[in-house]
Amino acid sequence: MKYDRVYNFSAGPSMLPLSVLEKAAAEMMNYRGSGMSITEMSHRSKAYDAVICDAVDRVKRVLAVPAGYSVLFLQGGASAQFAMVPMNLMTGSGSADYVVTGQFSGKAYKEAKKYGTANLAATSEPANFTYIPAQEELKLSPGADYVHICFNNTIYGSKWNYVPDTGSVPLVADMSSCIMSEPVDVSRFGVIYAGAQKNLAPAGVTLVIVRDDLMGRAMPNIPAVFDYATQAKNNSMYNTPPCFGIYMIGLVLEYLENEGGLEEMRVRNEAKAKLLYDAIDASRLFSNPVRHDCRSVMNVTFVTGSDELDAKFCREAAEAGLVSVKGHRSVGGMRASIYNAMPREGVEALVAFMEKFEKENA
Amino acid sequence: MKYDRVYNFSAGPSMLPLSVLEKAAAEMMNYRGSGMSITEMSHRSKAYDAVICDAVDRVKRVLAVPAGYSVLFLQGGASAQFAMVPMNLMTGSGSADYVVTGQFSGKAYKEAKKYGTANLAATSEPANFTYIPAQEELKLSPGADYVHICFNNTIYGSKWNYVPDTGSVPLVADMSSCIMSEPVDVSRFGVIYAGAQKNLAPAGVTLVIVRDDLMGRAMPNIPAVFDYATQAKNNSMYNTPPCFGIYMIGLVLEYLENEGGLEEMRVRNEAKAKLLYDAIDASRLFSNPVRHDCRSVMNVTFVTGSDELDAKFCREAAEAGLVSVKGHRSVGGMRASIYNAMPREGVEALVAFMEKFEKENA
Repeated sequence: MKYDRVYNFSAGPSMLPLSVLEKAAAEMMNYRGSGMSITEMSHRSKAYDAVICDAVDRVKRVLAVPAGYSVLFLQGGASAQFAMVPMNLMTGSGSADYVVTGQFSGKAYKEAKKYGTANLAATSEPANFTYIPAQEELKLSPGADYVHICFNNTIYGSKWNYVPDTGSVPLVADMSSCIMSEPVDVSRFGVIYAGAQKNLAPAGVTLVIVRDDLMGRAMPNIPAVFDYATQAKNNSMYNTPPCFGIYMIGLVLEYLENEGGLEEMRVRNEAKAKLLYDAIDASRLFSNPVRHDCRSVMNVTFVTGSDELDAKFCREAAEAGLVSVKGHRSVGGMRASIYNAMPREGVEALVAFMEKFEKENA
Repeated sequence: MKYDRVYNFSAGPSMLPLSVLEKAAAEMMNYRGSGMSITEMSHRSKAYDAVICDAVDRVKRVLAVPAGYSVLFLQGGASAQFAMVPMNLMTGSGSADYVVTGQFSGKAYKEAKKYGTANLAATSEPANFTYIPAQEELKLSPGADYVHICFNNTIYGSKWNYVPDTGSVPLVADMSSCIMSEPVDVSRFGVIYAGAQKNLAPAGVTLVIVRDDLMGRAMPNIPAVFDYATQAKNNSMYNTPPCFGIYMIGLVLEYLENEGGLEEMRVRNEAKAKLLYDAIDASRLFSNPVRHDCRSVMNVTFVTGSDELDAKFCREAAEAGLVSVKGHRSVGGMRASIYNAMPREGVEALVAFMEKFEKENA
């Protein structure tokens, strides 16, 4: 390849479209005739205002965000949202329902307890997070200020295959590792948030989509930068925003639109995931513990059953140009994150490598 | 010039060294043989660990940070620090002293009131922030948890020309717009923080230097990402950090070290500022309202006295390739921000333009 690039299966930060990187590099010394880099440009300038407005418009267009929602670009990643969500929304009854289906939803649940009553509506922890609870299993409280879920579990490789019905209670979803991977009915959600570093942009910017009627009810005395209403009123520029990251979101979404949008991404992503899951299911060496109907399309986990073989696999895969396939440090094994920017060829190369490895280590 | 770049006098985001931008562009598709962009690299990888450790080491080396301090790279800018500082430090007597010398120190003061008793130790607001109060004017409370100052006032163009003596009370300084512009005795401070977008890197990363004994005393139930101790324990990687920004800090500091470090920066910056202030003081059209001994070396403000002429100046300067000289929207007039990356030639060009403008509009 031109730049001698590897296939990077990192869970995040993760691969970006090469054409986006080339564009960012080409514009780095002079952004479109402005005489300066996007990294040097005042966020109060007309040129930058066009950049952020374009990124907002693209999010709305690509995700088909209905009227009545605001698109924000914030800082602090999903971890900051774990605090911002209760600070902004846990102000009616002072309680919220949390469904814990992995490490990050667990962290969100724990963080929420600082600010009010967080109810555990359901958890798949006893089954080692290998499935997503069904609607009937959710113990939802009618008076909750919101219900929080993590739509795709990066570490365990599972995903919600349905949008839970929460009645009139707003549904809040961490979509960090599945945003823009397939169409989603935004109208079913009160808040959607996503750290950018998986499917959107480099790390350092968080996409937050908030239904407008949920703003303006924040707790008093929260940090000014944590108030959704303040950020919305200022088009995410209450203070200096992460300008480069927002610009990169614009470039990535421009790429997505040119490639056919989210329906096309869904088709490609499901095909890539099927390749990999089929290979795992056909293997006698590798296995995936997630219940089939809850398997993530973005993060495919697998193990050999031997820590030694797992380590050997990761090492030899890296030597073959298939890097960052090591599972999260908390669970071990392997994980192939195959976000939008991972080409089908990368998954094919991984599958071929797995077959070779299995033959050599049978 | 090769890239047809302008002289960008923006207060932040602002100019970066061209060689840094060229390096970032050259490494964008493949960071030093890793086969991936720095923007795609897992923050848990060995390669990235080397990047963040290098940036920490460079901060320590360039600023001569003594032992017993931690260097953190956080998100949210100075505005997030306005909340983080009290959340982490206002836990002894529950009170702190604030010196208000401009808009940002005023915001910090206001934010601190949310979390405890913020005392106004002094303010130059009645004089429209045209000076910095002297040591004798500071009404310091012996029992305060800390004293907060803004070391350089970006909007008003003033700077502290001394480090206040706060006895055993830790001194906390917002150095967003003067960090790395000259040597500073870090041992005089408990906390130094700086949004990167003036003298360090693109927007989206905040440098925070904390004396270690000031950590571990945070308020309970603050956002996990806001706890200095948590961030220090995890080398700023409690959650995904703003990886690209941290990398850029490393590149900028590498440039600084190659150029001769902070003593050389001080000499160059003072010479640039002198050029500009001399021109203003010699002019019959332009004037600068700041008391001479408090004039900022980084942000040089000036006015004609006529809003119309000011607007004309900004417009014609931009046409001449001298952009973003408009003063902050809250004060009007002109402001030339001349951080490290602004070459002397840029200031000379601005001075020449001012002289020409004065002749044409006398």
